[in-house]
Amino acid sequence: MNELSTYKSSSYRTILWLLFLCFASVANAKSNDPLPSWNKGASKSAIVQFVKSATKKRGADFVPTAERIATFDNDGTLWSEQPIAQLMFALDRVKAEAPNHPEWKDTEPFKSVLANDMKGIMATGEQGLMELIMATHTGMSVEEFNQIAKYWLAMSKHPKYNRPYTELVYQPMLELLSYLRANGFKTYVVSGGGIEFMRVWMEKAYGIPPEQVIGSSVKTKFEWVDGKPVLMRLPELDFNDDKGGKPVAIQKFIGRRPIAAFGNSDGDLQMLQWTSATNRPHFALIVHHTDAEREVAYDRDSVIGHLDKALDEAPQKGWTVVDMKKDWKKVFPFEK
Amino acid sequence: MNELSTYKSSSYRTILWLLFLCFASVANAKSNDPLPSWNKGASKSAIVQFVKSATKKRGADFVPTAERIATFDNDGTLWSEQPIAQLMFALDRVKAEAPNHPEWKDTEPFKSVLANDMKGIMATGEQGLMELIMATHTGMSVEEFNQIAKYWLAMSKHPKYNRPYTELVYQPMLELLSYLRANGFKTYVVSGGGIEFMRVWMEKAYGIPPEQVIGSSVKTKFEWVDGKPVLMRLPELDFNDDKGGKPVAIQKFIGRRPIAAFGNSDGDLQMLQWTSATNRPHFALIVHHTDAEREVAYDRDSVIGHLDKALDEAPQKGWTVVDMKKDWKKVFPFEK
Repeated sequence: MNELSTYKSSSYRTILWLLFLCFASVANAKSNDPLPSWNKGASKSAIVQFVKSATKKRGADFVPTAERIATFDNDGTLWSEQPIAQLMFALDRVKAEAPNHPEWKDTEPFKSVLANDMKGIMATGEQGLMELIMATHTGMSVEEFNQIAKYWLAMSKHPKYNRPYTELVYQPMLELLSYLRANGFKTYVVSGGGIEFMRVWMEKAYGIPPEQVIGSSVKTKFEWVDGKPVLMRLPELDFNDDKGGKPVAIQKFIGRRPIAAFGNSDGDLQMLQWTSATNRPHFALIVHHTDAEREVAYDRDSVIGHLDKALDEAPQKGWTVVDMKKDWKKVFPFEK
Repeated sequence: MNELSTYKSSSYRTILWLLFLCFASVANAKSNDPLPSWNKGASKSAIVQFVKSATKKRGADFVPTAERIATFDNDGTLWSEQPIAQLMFALDRVKAEAPNHPEWKDTEPFKSVLANDMKGIMATGEQGLMELIMATHTGMSVEEFNQIAKYWLAMSKHPKYNRPYTELVYQPMLELLSYLRANGFKTYVVSGGGIEFMRVWMEKAYGIPPEQVIGSSVKTKFEWVDGKPVLMRLPELDFNDDKGGKPVAIQKFIGRRPIAAFGNSDGDLQMLQWTSATNRPHFALIVHHTDAEREVAYDRDSVIGHLDKALDEAPQKGWTVVDMKKDWKKVFPFEK
């Protein structure tokens, strides 16, 4: 081997080594990113910054593990809310039960449901929707209801994506849930959705166990049926877990103020306010639906997921507003 | 060294070794007993047997960790209920607030409270007691109430033992709570007591965090006071967590059926029935107050902690009935 070849061989080796180190460090950085579906930007930075400061021992903003409570709205925050899955469930149940209720053909809101007339259903207002919920969600035991909901979720598909509703969860939010839990946070759902309807699928979809799911509920009653105790679901509203109801439910179920809250509509405003009204470290975030292509774009003019006051309050309060289109690399897990 | 001395020295050494081993093994057995304040007997064996079988992987009765939910009544099950601390709190609050309510001097049940006439108070019945609770537990924010309750608990003493009420917890039950948690159980309180009153002291006394305390509640409302959001406690019953209310609350808060339940009165009967009405492994236990000397002896004829139907049902259902006098080596932690 002459001098030149020795030199060449050695410099080749160096280059190869440098390339390898470079590649390894990029690969490592990539795999170390707990939020790979979040684009770089203010939203992602704000999340990471908050988590780092809350978990930094002896730091000024350190929060003990037991107090790291994070509450998430569900519809429009963790999964798609257009259409609202639980309303679709109620409509399907009306159709399935219609043979046992001949009177429904001539009575609203059932008449409109059977005629697939969504405008007609909406025209019956809040009272009509409540009647639909009571007719389809009560009169059976909790266990029976859970079976019905489970079956429907397994058999039904989202009209636009033609996939089970439980696949319409937001990939960046799944990563956020995992990231928070990996940092000692206890993640809760605090949603206007029905508490039992949600418990059926959330453990699998989000890794959130039933005891960390808070929602709206009907009254139930302990009764004996055929020599066995059951919890019967009564056609009476127990609790509406929306707006001012969210802080009320958080206190009732958790008994601590969250240090982080996540929502997407004015229904979450009071939860965000409650979380922020403290001198302790806290974090509040709004998912703003800006992506008409990958999902749906809506805010101030929408009936579903109406976002107006909370959007105005966000900059004054320092809340993070996620721009779905800009901030999310991926919306759903099934996207390539 | 002659032969004899060698022999002696060696046998001495052997004896010393044997003594040491013997002592070490006794000490070890003692420190390995997770329930040192429980005397040997059927109750202790039943508890240990259940926990061993529920946690034995690949055993027939194995229960996954997430499903190991254990629910405990509080008054008379985890701490002394004669007198009921929360009632004492209400009476003290009436006296403290009396100057602001001159009308109380002539109105029942307040009149009897101010006259220290316990018979008179009891004669006002459930409605009178509810009035006392509403007058003393509502009209302030949740945070204000918690401060009031904390202060009272720090300043008040049990009339018989002359110690803070929070020292009147049962040592064997503290050990049971720890033993269950060490075996992957999630321990909950499900009590007729006020949920916020209990949360103030249970984390320290039992190691049970606020989100695992379930109790009776008043309605609360999200309001703005002086530019800050508060949860105001309203003079209206939200939920009575007693009897059939216990399974209802368990389903609402936890969303799973417990596999172990612990009570001491007929107020716990439905919780024990609900826990037992399954083919899965389960365990139910009643603390029977049989010890007039160290605590109080009461059951079928007592108004407080009335235990009658549940005692009759226990043998049929295979529930463990703890005989406090016989089964507990120690009742309170402060006993020698």
